[in-house]
Amino acid sequence: MAIELYELHGLNGRRYSLFSWRARMALAHKGLAFESRPVKITDKAAIAFSGQTRVPIIRDGATTVSDSWRIAEYLEQAYPARPSLFGGPGGQALARFVNAWADRQLVPAMLPGLMLDNVAALEADDAAYLRAAIEKAYAKSLEELAGGREASLKAFARLLDPVRATLRAQTFLCGAAPAYADYIVFSVLQWARVASRAPVLPADDPVGGWFERVLDAFDGFGRAEPARA
Amino acid sequence: MAIELYELHGLNGRRYSLFSWRARMALAHKGLAFESRPVKITDKAAIAFSGQTRVPIIRDGATTVSDSWRIAEYLEQAYPARPSLFGGPGGQALARFVNAWADRQLVPAMLPGLMLDNVAALEADDAAYLRAAIEKAYAKSLEELAGGREASLKAFARLLDPVRATLRAQTFLCGAAPAYADYIVFSVLQWARVASRAPVLPADDPVGGWFERVLDAFDGFGRAEPARA
Repeated sequence: MAIELYELHGLNGRRYSLFSWRARMALAHKGLAFESRPVKITDKAAIAFSGQTRVPIIRDGATTVSDSWRIAEYLEQAYPARPSLFGGPGGQALARFVNAWADRQLVPAMLPGLMLDNVAALEADDAAYLRAAIEKAYAKSLEELAGGREASLKAFARLLDPVRATLRAQTFLCGAAPAYADYIVFSVLQWARVASRAPVLPADDPVGGWFERVLDAFDGFGRAEPARA
Repeated sequence: MAIELYELHGLNGRRYSLFSWRARMALAHKGLAFESRPVKITDKAAIAFSGQTRVPIIRDGATTVSDSWRIAEYLEQAYPARPSLFGGPGGQALARFVNAWADRQLVPAMLPGLMLDNVAALEADDAAYLRAAIEKAYAKSLEELAGGREASLKAFARLLDPVRATLRAQTFLCGAAPAYADYIVFSVLQWARVASRAPVLPADDPVGGWFERVLDAFDGFGRAEPARA
């Protein structure tokens, strides 16, 4: 039986979750077929089997793994003969740093300005749930947060400086070919690509060229998900 | 003949340069003996042989290499049988990202508040040269920049969040043992340790525990350089 991937979906089945994209790209990189099991944020019953309350979750035979980072570690360990997600132990250790950097610096710069568009791409119950959670966390309405979108995106573009510098010397963050650290950063831009009504990077940003290359990987696996803008 | 390392020195021979520390730690990691050739910022004649105007520079037999990143790459390639600085190609690719992240985010947060202390630890001609260069770049006096030190250090501590998160899961950024990406981040704190009249991290910051572990590496190689505070 193929691996099952439990993951969020929005209106029209859109796969907007950045953490889901990390798992999707990891599965594609390993060349592993999977069956997507779309769930809503508010549908906890669908994932009760896992003992977890959040997706992504994969089920591979008798093994259940949640959390995008743990999923990547699991796939690397369980499928060592397939292309490596990390390029060795040094790469795995530093990919964890990239994961923490993206989650603690990139995501907070992207999230507030994107969320109004994001909830508009969700079914009504998920939209209401997510709106309430974000408005509570920021003590601001999504509309107020969207008003700061331009400043946030400038900060986001600045945070990508080290990515830009790295890409002047190599084609992908992981070297000559993309690997898991690329998918980590990719996931933030793919989230924006799927959920945002307007582009989040200036058209001439070299990070955009790299993003297109990752969209092309695995026969355009990431590109097959329609862009919203 | 041992490898020669041309590097900056301050008063009393202090090795304060962060880029020099990257090269020093890389040499120590490889277990390579080296002879330090201290130069001042203003003494360009001493490094004219290299065709470069900036240190660190290493001379290894007939080979001259400048720039701390290129020195690390050179040592990895020239001494493959010695302990790896990168832990494989994936680690090398991501170490370049960490290098860019440190230089573009950590260093700019540390530099303005540290520079007044730094120039006070230099010989008079280097102090005057560096003061003029920094004051021109920031269009502020070093004294004004030092006035913003507390805010800068708070920003610096926040930028270390992904390091802190990574160190909750592993002992070093590079995994179970330190390697080049550790030395990159270490170098910024070692610069502060050697040049700053006051600590730059709160005493209870877990990053401090990691820094102490890197100071201990190679029989206390980094710790042998006296702290100023």
